Amino acid sequence: MSSANVVALGGGHGLYATLSAVRRFSTDVTAVVTVADDGGSSGRLRAELGMIPPGDLRMALAALAGEDPRSRLWADVLQHRFGGNGALAGHSVGNLVLAGLTEVMGDPVLALDELGRVLDVAGRVLPMSPVALEIEADVSGLEDDPRVSRVIRGQVAVATTPGKVRRVRLRPTDPPATEASVRAIERADLVILGPGSWFSSVLPHVLVPDLAAALAATSARKVLVLNLGPEPGETAGFSAERHLHVLSQHAPGLRVHHVVVDSASVPPGSEREHLARAAALFGADVVYADVASDAVRTHDPAALARVLAALAGGTDSSDRKDTSSWP
Amino acid sequence: MSSANVVALGGGHGLYATLSAVRRFSTDVTAVVTVADDGGSSGRLRAELGMIPPGDLRMALAALAGEDPRSRLWADVLQHRFGGNGALAGHSVGNLVLAGLTEVMGDPVLALDELGRVLDVAGRVLPMSPVALEIEADVSGLEDDPRVSRVIRGQVAVATTPGKVRRVRLRPTDPPATEASVRAIERADLVILGPGSWFSSVLPHVLVPDLAAALAATSARKVLVLNLGPEPGETAGFSAERHLHVLSQHAPGLRVHHVVVDSASVPPGSEREHLARAAALFGADVVYADVASDAVRTHDPAALARVLAALAGGTDSSDRKDTSSWP
Repeated sequence: MSSANVVALGGGHGLYATLSAVRRFSTDVTAVVTVADDGGSSGRLRAELGMIPPGDLRMALAALAGEDPRSRLWADVLQHRFGGNGALAGHSVGNLVLAGLTEVMGDPVLALDELGRVLDVAGRVLPMSPVALEIEADVSGLEDDPRVSRVIRGQVAVATTPGKVRRVRLRPTDPPATEASVRAIERADLVILGPGSWFSSVLPHVLVPDLAAALAATSARKVLVLNLGPEPGETAGFSAERHLHVLSQHAPGLRVHHVVVDSASVPPGSEREHLARAAALFGADVVYADVASDAVRTHDPAALARVLAALAGGTDSSDRKDTSSWP
Repeated sequence: MSSANVVALGGGHGLYATLSAVRRFSTDVTAVVTVADDGGSSGRLRAELGMIPPGDLRMALAALAGEDPRSRLWADVLQHRFGGNGALAGHSVGNLVLAGLTEVMGDPVLALDELGRVLDVAGRVLPMSPVALEIEADVSGLEDDPRVSRVIRGQVAVATTPGKVRRVRLRPTDPPATEASVRAIERADLVILGPGSWFSSVLPHVLVPDLAAALAATSARKVLVLNLGPEPGETAGFSAERHLHVLSQHAPGLRVHHVVVDSASVPPGSEREHLARAAALFGADVVYADVASDAVRTHDPAALARVLAALAGGTDSSDRKDTSSWP
């Protein structure tokens, strides 16, 4: 187990995959988690209690929970959702515990650290901002005239829009970053952005000015992990190359060392040439590796861990066994 | 600190007071808690999730929580209630955690033991029955004819009835006891019943056949702690003596060594003679002591602890400084 100091930026299932990978080679992991969710249990708690949406934070804690039976039990309990059709249906226990801890302690960062101790988390889970954020997007294709774009507000609305997302913004604009997130990025050995819902879990981080500045200032090796394919809704029809263009458009100054791409997702040939040119926008090379699990189209933690650990150490872990998956 | 093995039977604020006292002289405390509540957060969870009502159990855990800062913090969090006017308003965090733990672990006793470990509880909190119970009462004075009695169902309805509660029953009748409760009573050095809401937190225990049998079989010293006065609703206008008569009527065979009465609650003279005769129904003597806190009409933990510890050890802790308070 290396003592590499790793920071993973993201949210939702993408971040869960990254953290499941990183915990395999580092005992010092900081998750910097998006706080723009407005759906489901998180959205209801955010609206009812005025708190930052807890769901992505809870999931990150569960991903980093210790392996001992009590930590696993509590991770299961926190992830457990109430069923039925009553007032609690759909709420996960961990979201409610985070809500209570935050109200009692008065600070979501203190609450997350405390819950992390119960779960024996090998690292730290931080909200990227201490305030709840809203995602706002310019979306085209919703009107008869494809050139007309409309403003769509809220993560759920943006993620499920039948239109084409052109650009996203955060509200409030220029939100504060949690100080601990900035410090973690500054002192990291390895910073990982993605995979995850591109507009709602990956892009928001680079739209927080203090996080963008910390990403520019850090001497860490920076790795962008691309999704295995487009997602229905917000990135339907997006190529791998287009994901990079969208990110570059939102963060023109962002520099990254490596872009990790699943080998099976982009066939050799012109698509890889396009992708290499897009990666060059960030000063990055493209690392192809078999990082998808066979059964479901998600990242395989063990395979992703091998690639990330190698990149943290500066060795080459790419391979070339390729088929196509991106459109 | 004695190693006296103490079992406290009750519910609600009365049990909280007993446990706050007992923890001062014993590190081996088992709370056997009523599960008939149908009001507030407990009632909503019971109705929505089909669980035993968690509120009295949660309060007992909080009373026994360790003194270290983390245990105190978690006790505060579990006792914390959500405010506002949304779907969560009035729910305490601990009730929700117990609900989740119970659903994941499949057994409320396992769930309580696990939450007790988080709180560093010096002892154990057990539901008196593994199934949710309902209190049903024969209540007179609700009709024009005072001889007519009506059946009132549910703890809240019984506790707040404007009529006179004549008799209570549990539904289901003859409910099972938790096995651990029976074992705890059997091996106890000291068993304490009351104080608490007489019909809804004290009487229910003696209506569970296996608990009544364990109370008859145990070689423990048995102490009944009377309330400081009548409660609005279910025991409005009840004298101390009447509390004993009501208990005796519901548990004809119950034997108790001592009845602890606050000195200020019963004036010397004929009232104390009546009370002595009522205590004799249980084979008990009456121990008078200053056990009320001055500020509010609740039992003072330190004063109650002195009396109970002395009774556990067989010494006489009574005193005679008396004024009146019972009607």
